[in-house]
Amino acid sequence: MSKINPVVLARTRREELVQALVDRDLGFHQLPRDLDADEAADIRRTALEELAGRSLEKTGAYALDASRAARRNCENFVGAAQIPVGVVGPVLVRGEAIDGETFALLATTEAALVASTNRGCAAIRRAGGAIVRVEDVGMTRAPVFRTAGIEETRRFLAWIAAHEEEIRAITQGTSEYLKLLDIRPYSFGTTTFLRFRFTSGDAMGMNMATIACDRVVREFIEPGSGVECVALSGNYCVDKKPAAINFQEGRVKRVFAEVVLPREVLAETLKTNAQALLEVQYRKNLLGSIAAGSAGFNAHFANVLAAFFIASGQDLAHVVEGSMGVTCVEAREDGAVYASIYLPAVPVGAVGGGTALDTQAEALALMGVEIDPARPGWAAQRLAEILGATVLAGELSLLAAFTSDDLARAHERLGRGGLPAGGPLAR
Amino acid sequence: MSKINPVVLARTRREELVQALVDRDLGFHQLPRDLDADEAADIRRTALEELAGRSLEKTGAYALDASRAARRNCENFVGAAQIPVGVVGPVLVRGEAIDGETFALLATTEAALVASTNRGCAAIRRAGGAIVRVEDVGMTRAPVFRTAGIEETRRFLAWIAAHEEEIRAITQGTSEYLKLLDIRPYSFGTTTFLRFRFTSGDAMGMNMATIACDRVVREFIEPGSGVECVALSGNYCVDKKPAAINFQEGRVKRVFAEVVLPREVLAETLKTNAQALLEVQYRKNLLGSIAAGSAGFNAHFANVLAAFFIASGQDLAHVVEGSMGVTCVEAREDGAVYASIYLPAVPVGAVGGGTALDTQAEALALMGVEIDPARPGWAAQRLAEILGATVLAGELSLLAAFTSDDLARAHERLGRGGLPAGGPLAR
Amino acid sequence: MSKINPVVLARTRREELVQALVDRDLGFHQLPRDLDADEAADIRRTALEELAGRSLEKTGAYALDASRAARRNCENFVGAAQIPVGVVGPVLVRGEAIDGETFALLATTEAALVASTNRGCAAIRRAGGAIVRVEDVGMTRAPVFRTAGIEETRRFLAWIAAHEEEIRAITQGTSEYLKLLDIRPYSFGTTTFLRFRFTSGDAMGMNMATIACDRVVREFIEPGSGVECVALSGNYCVDKKPAAINFQEGRVKRVFAEVVLPREVLAETLKTNAQALLEVQYRKNLLGSIAAGSAGFNAHFANVLAAFFIASGQDLAHVVEGSMGVTCVEAREDGAVYASIYLPAVPVGAVGGGTALDTQAEALALMGVEIDPARPGWAAQRLAEILGATVLAGELSLLAAFTSDDLARAHERLGRGGLPAGGPLAR
Amino acid sequence: MSKINPVVLARTRREELVQALVDRDLGFHQLPRDLDADEAADIRRTALEELAGRSLEKTGAYALDASRAARRNCENFVGAAQIPVGVVGPVLVRGEAIDGETFALLATTEAALVASTNRGCAAIRRAGGAIVRVEDVGMTRAPVFRTAGIEETRRFLAWIAAHEEEIRAITQGTSEYLKLLDIRPYSFGTTTFLRFRFTSGDAMGMNMATIACDRVVREFIEPGSGVECVALSGNYCVDKKPAAINFQEGRVKRVFAEVVLPREVLAETLKTNAQALLEVQYRKNLLGSIAAGSAGFNAHFANVLAAFFIASGQDLAHVVEGSMGVTCVEAREDGAVYASIYLPAVPVGAVGGGTALDTQAEALALMGVEIDPARPGWAAQRLAEILGATVLAGELSLLAAFTSDDLARAHERLGRGGLPAGGPLAR
Repeated sequence: MSKINPVVLARTRREELVQALVDRDLGFHQLPRDLDADEAADIRRTALEELAGRSLEKTGAYALDASRAARRNCENFVGAAQIPVGVVGPVLVRGEAIDGETFALLATTEAALVASTNRGCAAIRRAGGAIVRVEDVGMTRAPVFRTAGIEETRRFLAWIAAHEEEIRAITQGTSEYLKLLDIRPYSFGTTTFLRFRFTSGDAMGMNMATIACDRVVREFIEPGSGVECVALSGNYCVDKKPAAINFQEGRVKRVFAEVVLPREVLAETLKTNAQALLEVQYRKNLLGSIAAGSAGFNAHFANVLAAFFIASGQDLAHVVEGSMGVTCVEAREDGAVYASIYLPAVPVGAVGGGTALDTQAEALALMGVEIDPARPGWAAQRLAEILGATVLAGELSLLAAFTSDDLARAHERLGRGGLPAGGPLAR
Repeated sequence: MSKINPVVLARTRREELVQALVDRDLGFHQLPRDLDADEAADIRRTALEELAGRSLEKTGAYALDASRAARRNCENFVGAAQIPVGVVGPVLVRGEAIDGETFALLATTEAALVASTNRGCAAIRRAGGAIVRVEDVGMTRAPVFRTAGIEETRRFLAWIAAHEEEIRAITQGTSEYLKLLDIRPYSFGTTTFLRFRFTSGDAMGMNMATIACDRVVREFIEPGSGVECVALSGNYCVDKKPAAINFQEGRVKRVFAEVVLPREVLAETLKTNAQALLEVQYRKNLLGSIAAGSAGFNAHFANVLAAFFIASGQDLAHVVEGSMGVTCVEAREDGAVYASIYLPAVPVGAVGGGTALDTQAEALALMGVEIDPARPGWAAQRLAEILGATVLAGELSLLAAFTSDDLARAHERLGRGGLPAGGPLAR
Repeated sequence: MSKINPVVLARTRREELVQALVDRDLGFHQLPRDLDADEAADIRRTALEELAGRSLEKTGAYALDASRAARRNCENFVGAAQIPVGVVGPVLVRGEAIDGETFALLATTEAALVASTNRGCAAIRRAGGAIVRVEDVGMTRAPVFRTAGIEETRRFLAWIAAHEEEIRAITQGTSEYLKLLDIRPYSFGTTTFLRFRFTSGDAMGMNMATIACDRVVREFIEPGSGVECVALSGNYCVDKKPAAINFQEGRVKRVFAEVVLPREVLAETLKTNAQALLEVQYRKNLLGSIAAGSAGFNAHFANVLAAFFIASGQDLAHVVEGSMGVTCVEAREDGAVYASIYLPAVPVGAVGGGTALDTQAEALALMGVEIDPARPGWAAQRLAEILGATVLAGELSLLAAFTSDDLARAHERLGRGGLPAGGPLAR
Repeated sequence: MSKINPVVLARTRREELVQALVDRDLGFHQLPRDLDADEAADIRRTALEELAGRSLEKTGAYALDASRAARRNCENFVGAAQIPVGVVGPVLVRGEAIDGETFALLATTEAALVASTNRGCAAIRRAGGAIVRVEDVGMTRAPVFRTAGIEETRRFLAWIAAHEEEIRAITQGTSEYLKLLDIRPYSFGTTTFLRFRFTSGDAMGMNMATIACDRVVREFIEPGSGVECVALSGNYCVDKKPAAINFQEGRVKRVFAEVVLPREVLAETLKTNAQALLEVQYRKNLLGSIAAGSAGFNAHFANVLAAFFIASGQDLAHVVEGSMGVTCVEAREDGAVYASIYLPAVPVGAVGGGTALDTQAEALALMGVEIDPARPGWAAQRLAEILGATVLAGELSLLAAFTSDDLARAHERLGRGGLPAGGPLAR
């Protein structure tokens, strides 16, 4: 028997697998496990190209570590989506985990966003920096339980209260980084939610909290109390949905940032003045959001936060609760204004999720967000502080743009191929 | 005088520019305009690397067309963030712009999401496909105006009503794709919002609406009515914030999708049954969201929508309103369930924004989302229909996972390096 | 056979009926129909007194027309609750149905409310009156229907649209005062709401709208469309619950009122000044309500509205949506302030409900709220205009009280038996 | 000099005072203090009658103790509004402060409400009674403070935390019934709210909380911390407005009630069945309120609560938050249903406010709600328990009415003069 050239063999096998995908004899998740991630991706792409008659060449031209991405972030891996990244800053952050300047990367497809945020960073620098504070209120997970009614619910809640220490021990036993802050119950009828709240070091903590709740519910609460858990997440957590509970109680990080902008900075950097800025703040951020029945009393937290989240490897669906919050602008003497932002529920982490992906890790490193084993939680705090100052920068610049009629013109110019450099938003 | 080698000259100029950035003699947005986007990005990255002492190599290893990205999407361009992409499907969509199968790409960093959504797609296929309908309710922009009070407001609103045709003509004159549907006023005290609503063909329409409003406000409404516009966006639009107005009135696309899942599909594909699914739906999606004061009565629209948005070049901050909505699950005969999703305000476009970026354009083409001049709006509708079926798939699979205790274990296994293929979520 | 004295007979019968109630041989709603309302009430009270060992003497000392109350307002009638009534005013209303002064009655148990509102009336008078405008947006009722899913829903909505004229004719045929403004559909999954909106002349219109919807649903929509109505009110109306739909769309009357208060009026009548008032408005009415996640951006609309509703025979549960709304306070030149209130959904009527009850009818007559057949709707509009000015008066006075620390002291003094006359709130 | 007959003198003086009011030489609050309340009311009414040309005879025909009402409840007292009162019950309450039957009085002007609620009471009795539990979560008051920004806010909150014991002592020193449960801070920008939460024995507690906050703020917190209080109530309390904070944290009493209704009770008493009831609950109370963006997931808590509040002397504007809440209906075996209600924020008191007014005191006594010095808080708890069972009764009966098409017909018949006794709602 003749030897078969292994390259030929591999090629043959590849072609057979592609054909099997095309013929639907195999699902995209059913490729043999011995294929490495790059090979599997290539096979999937080739099959898709054949099926759709369209190229996925650029999707396959990724620079990330496919084996990690395929294992930890994304099943049926075929490649990468590439989002343009721009730099803003330096942003001058007067925080607790960073007191100084840093650059930040924003990944966005929305013209004018980077230029505008960069202009806000300049204003903040000229004003001496943004004071930022971050409260680590903890990640939450709220399993939902079913009881027979009011009386069993009462017994159940009493049982939980009486066993808080065991519950703490079990949940904390699932990770050295988890610390159970409290359990907030909410009940009506036959339904009880237990909203567990954990700090989780430098991780955003969603998976850790889920795993800890799973453990304690299955192994301790259900057998011990006799009360059945219906779902490990009962939407009283609440993850990735706008909700009053997160606005009230916070989730992961509460972020506060502020700056006082003197008259000259308003005039020269932001091309505005106190009165005009106050007017936009009043009619748009306060009355407009009231009229709209909105939980966001701001101009565009979501834009900057989304761009920051993508660049830094955060969970992109967390933009939903992360972008809730309130901007305040108040007059100060001599034509200055005080401006603050408040974001009650920003889920960020410096480890886990997408943070180890190649480009995302670079963005974190650029900002000095690196895990320090001696200071667990410090890196995530630093990240949140930089985020806070950057969101403030973006907010200020857009509010100012409204006062000088820049908005539509910037969109018109930039969104349609104008030159960003040197424009009024680009300072 | 000796000739200078142009390569050396370029190198020298590059080094000088890098140094100027490092020395802060030049801002990142102030590089000479004759540099092409790749050169400018390289200079910025090099300066950043020097400033931070960290590499941006992978950020620079992009496969997208930098000149386009830098001009249309992202100022201070330095490279790209790469997000892992997985394939799901085929998803069988019974819509109006697509009645058949397609694959979809999801860009995500959250382990288990692709596998789980893929399982949902299998369930939908086995059930004969998801019926999807999309309503084009139009993009909105709501400038805010200041009057002297109630009486002037009345006159102003009467003036607007009397000049609706001129307003229509002027706004529609800014783009051949814009059609003004209506103007919804909302007033109290000295503040009036005019919420303009436009269809915009295949574009998501935010910039077109902004430009049209700018034109008509500056050139017609302010001079004609004598009433001053305070900001071109008064948050009654409302963009990228959770809000009642969008839930009530919709924004861009309302998406409806549904499927009836027979008992066997529930059992074999989703590893669940009607009763368990109904229980999770009731306690989590309905009561849990009620308890949380949430506007999202679903399990995780935001996850699938965000992944779909990134892959297909949508505005990522639009995940906020895009992910609002309601899941329903109802018992049907013989152990089947009816499941539906409803998303009232999904801003999507098949042209503009990030849709022309290289990897994003590939994702759109794969789904057959390609502009047909003969049918303006058709491509965007097709995109929204595929989105609807994919979100439904993700929703069903996660709800089912709760019933079989898969959630935490999937996170534990997948998020920490387990093998997605063959797991319970991967079917 | 001997004649029985009819008085004795009546007494005997009365005693027997009382005994039957006490013995529970008869329910309180089962008294013979030939008893007049006063007799029946007396029998019920006597039985209750015996059952509970407590007197109901004052409850029985009513001055209202029992036969009317028992027939039209309150089954199992036993008497009346008596709520103290105070007079405020004159309030100077610059409206369309009233342009001049009137007094208003407030029924309340909360000390300081009347005194404080009266002070606000004085301020408004000194400022030349409150401009008030009322929009008749119509009463709503939203039956809820069940379809098989998206496709049947579409057909159903098309059917409704195609039969709008028949629906108009049928609904308007149930009352000469009803006019159908529009039908707003809202659908997802298998559920469709049709929010009918009617003007109803001088009546608040709830019953008229319900009867009209019942008629058209049972006789026309269900048989004609084949779609089943699940409940005649589907909570998308929405009656007596705080809700975004009513804030957005209004219900019955939208009320707008405003006044400009010169510096002297602020200082002398309200014991405050512009800056202090603006500060309370900003921190309490705007930021405080934002922090609380409230739909009420005001200080205490509900207090004045409830007192006004009781005195004038309105439905007391309508205080819920009636009291939603927004107060604005803005600086004007020379230390003046502009103040406005906005209430989007005030259900009031000048006929029907409790308006014909004896004391309530007196309160309406005092305000000149009397039906004019030549001007249907005029009386209800007048009522709403006076309400608007009175709520504004109460709002201004309480805001001012906060600035002068009066609140707690007024409660301390008045609520515990102090003398209202002459106090700082009593002007 | 001749003696003047004192009766004549009094008459003359009365006439002079009436004339002074008519001539506006005197304000209605400026009558001499030596007049007793009845005399002053008579003078005011006479003047009003003259001014308006309308009678206030019935308003003056009150049976309440005018001197008390005028001193404690209502300035500018002129008489009483009389609201019809009907009896419902007995309602069988399985609570902690009442375990047995009681009758309840409802004051209402809405036809069918008493009859319908009475039918619900019958259903509950037949089902063995309603289990009711009440949590005393405490009355709240949240003063709002202004700081210079984030850093001063942090110091301020630390100061508050460090002085909690002094604050407790001072607030509790203002009333022997007050107990400070906790202080919940909420801050952003330059604004800080401190939400004080007190139990207050049998009183509703609003005035007690206000007085305690006034004391501690003026005498201790402002001088000690140097931070200024802008308003004693900062709307983070929040009083008489629909709001997430009260839904999440509760206010005064959280009320839970439930009952299991067997198939026969559904069929015979409520003329319905499990499936029909579940359908109305699902489409109306859950989906309808979701569609409406409502915080009330129920059919009509507000109706019964308002009627109960008026009859029992509660603050009528408290209907706003008192009526928030959630109804649940679930299938049980053999055609039975489980039904529960949950009201998170019911402000009730058994002492203070309007509870001592004559008719209101009778209503409380009838229900056995009488202060027991040995058990402070017991009477208020009993009141809340009876309220809970009564609201449940009203809710069940209305839900059932929807299933049998009774609603509109009942309104048609009862609201227009039909006979309540014997009708389908009257059982």
